[in-house]
Amino acid sequence: MPKISNKGIYMPASPIRKLTPIAEKAKKDGKKVYHLNIGQPDIETPEVMLNAIKNADFKVWAYTASEGTESYRNKLTEYYNNINYNITPEDIIVTSGGSEALTIAMMTCLNPGDEAIIPEPFYANYNAFACQTDVVVRPIMSHIENGFALPPITEFEKVITLKTRAIIICNPNNPTGYLYSQKEMEDLKMLALKYDLYIIADEAYREFCYDGRKFISPMHFEGIDDHVIVIDTVSKRYSACGARLGALVTKNKEVIATAMKFAQARLSAGMLEQIAGEAALDTPVEYFEEVSKEYTARRDILVDALNKMEGVFCPVPGGAFYVVASLPVDNADKFCQWVLQDFTYENQTVMIAPATGFYATENKGVNQVRMAYVINQKDLKAAMVCLEKALEAYPGRLFV
Amino acid sequence: MPKISNKGIYMPASPIRKLTPIAEKAKKDGKKVYHLNIGQPDIETPEVMLNAIKNADFKVWAYTASEGTESYRNKLTEYYNNINYNITPEDIIVTSGGSEALTIAMMTCLNPGDEAIIPEPFYANYNAFACQTDVVVRPIMSHIENGFALPPITEFEKVITLKTRAIIICNPNNPTGYLYSQKEMEDLKMLALKYDLYIIADEAYREFCYDGRKFISPMHFEGIDDHVIVIDTVSKRYSACGARLGALVTKNKEVIATAMKFAQARLSAGMLEQIAGEAALDTPVEYFEEVSKEYTARRDILVDALNKMEGVFCPVPGGAFYVVASLPVDNADKFCQWVLQDFTYENQTVMIAPATGFYATENKGVNQVRMAYVINQKDLKAAMVCLEKALEAYPGRLFV
Repeated sequence: MPKISNKGIYMPASPIRKLTPIAEKAKKDGKKVYHLNIGQPDIETPEVMLNAIKNADFKVWAYTASEGTESYRNKLTEYYNNINYNITPEDIIVTSGGSEALTIAMMTCLNPGDEAIIPEPFYANYNAFACQTDVVVRPIMSHIENGFALPPITEFEKVITLKTRAIIICNPNNPTGYLYSQKEMEDLKMLALKYDLYIIADEAYREFCYDGRKFISPMHFEGIDDHVIVIDTVSKRYSACGARLGALVTKNKEVIATAMKFAQARLSAGMLEQIAGEAALDTPVEYFEEVSKEYTARRDILVDALNKMEGVFCPVPGGAFYVVASLPVDNADKFCQWVLQDFTYENQTVMIAPATGFYATENKGVNQVRMAYVINQKDLKAAMVCLEKALEAYPGRLFV
Repeated sequence: MPKISNKGIYMPASPIRKLTPIAEKAKKDGKKVYHLNIGQPDIETPEVMLNAIKNADFKVWAYTASEGTESYRNKLTEYYNNINYNITPEDIIVTSGGSEALTIAMMTCLNPGDEAIIPEPFYANYNAFACQTDVVVRPIMSHIENGFALPPITEFEKVITLKTRAIIICNPNNPTGYLYSQKEMEDLKMLALKYDLYIIADEAYREFCYDGRKFISPMHFEGIDDHVIVIDTVSKRYSACGARLGALVTKNKEVIATAMKFAQARLSAGMLEQIAGEAALDTPVEYFEEVSKEYTARRDILVDALNKMEGVFCPVPGGAFYVVASLPVDNADKFCQWVLQDFTYENQTVMIAPATGFYATENKGVNQVRMAYVINQKDLKAAMVCLEKALEAYPGRLFV
């Protein structure tokens, strides 16, 4: 029997992979499981987007241009220029989700063995994309105490080597919900220029900034056009994760020309999705106001409930729809499994993600968990009651 | 300005990339251009598939399971078992097109520097996927004289080294249309067992076999379950290239488990496409009979016309919807460009793909072109008249 590849062996598995069958079993056993473990929102996809699919009139479901259809890229350009990115349609390659955009960006910009600095905790699949593309992740620590703010410049400079080619950020952040400030983004600009680095900015959660805070993209800065690559997706913006429609956006002409070769190899992104994505850009502003109000309310419910639990700490995130909280437990991996497997409160339980999967450094975040507030307020409250009861009953509970 | 990666530099561009802007200009200048250059059929997508999209009833366009929805995999299993693959739903990972399935297969099975033997000419993007995954392609020559039959075992054995891990075939073949025989497939089985190799079989054109010839998959053989990986796609079967829906199919449990890690990293294939793909499996058999009749008629028109032109040779392919023909020209790259740029017959011209892009060995196929019979019979006839006139007028014409 032929061997599988080393890459296959080292490819990290999803952090919740072990928990999924346990949750399935709990459900089969009749337990109600509140899912706070993944970023799959329950928010309805905008009607304009769904109607565009129903009304799409075509006889042949054909490839589109590898860079995306002209009309979708034109309309996306309007959208980006409304938020002051100052781009042209030629600066966009439409991709199969943000995942493909990031993979293409990594292959385009980094050689095998080149290093990308990523503040941790970070979106677990960055590790997977790095493994796929033989990129070395150099994590630098952000801390729960200050809400996972960007680590200071000196921390970046400590790990910069001749092999460093990029800084990858996710803003607002998954998993922490942290929204980077103007000052923090200026620090990144300075680093990119001083050390000739790419800034790869994953802006999947751009629309989800709360409390009137302002979203800052590296696209907003002058003088770093050749350094900035934005990774985008419709998944969260329009609650359309299953559309697998994203984009790579950069004003660097050489990066676009090179990324285009990778895009051509896989022929095109989905045709129907691009029709839907184009229509989505007409989503009325009220939709986002409504969604933002809803997420803010949920965040407040979640964060308030968590911080009222003894021994729990959860910073208030400024964006996205995640929180990372620390729990008074010996080991969050064990706790998350125990809650699903051995615990029940009024025949309910809760599925949350241990944070260790979001840290590249071993033994970090062992008492932390990530929760996504992607379920309705009533269920969210019930889930918090469950969690509190679970923490009280958990045998590995720590009393500090 | 940061540099792009070496992989980005070496990534091959599409073989028709240079021609595309020339064709665009020709069309702007008012010329009618017959497109025989790409595998985008004009055949209508089955109604059941398009109706499934219109009737899909959902409020949240959500991720599916990374391996694909259970119901789609169940139904795909029925389809595969109807053609005697003898698989289970657990043997399938649903992908974003055949391209993603092949990339995942290569990452799962081959280390950087490992070698895959591919009979040439071969689908040009195999080079691109190999570049992406640092796989070394070892081409072995198939020949126009015998219709591009599988090279003899001795040719394979000449290039097998300790680094050889896979044989990649496309059957029926793109670009040649060749359909491998039972004997040829048995030869491949023997090689796989003797040298412990994977057979990665791209079966995108499985449904398109003509003249009553039988399609043989390595899935049909016993004793090589762990060696066989089938790459599939709905693109050609249902004329749904823009759906970007494919599958990786293997009975090798370790390969599936590993491929699953790559699949999880990019979250899922498109949700709507899986609904459509499931419905497509109910396409009435008459659809395929009709399509097969149409392609056979087109093939005959194309091959007959080509072989009647002086100095042209075109073998009769047994499947797919491509032919590779040799032309009496100094250089097919130059000829294909000249036809678009400098030639016109009754204000029409034709776009065909030079075959050099399908050969990995330099200076091979310089007088060959690939044509896809994906336009209607009337246009195909007109295109052939154009081509004949072009060959008569071409300054680099050879008289042998």
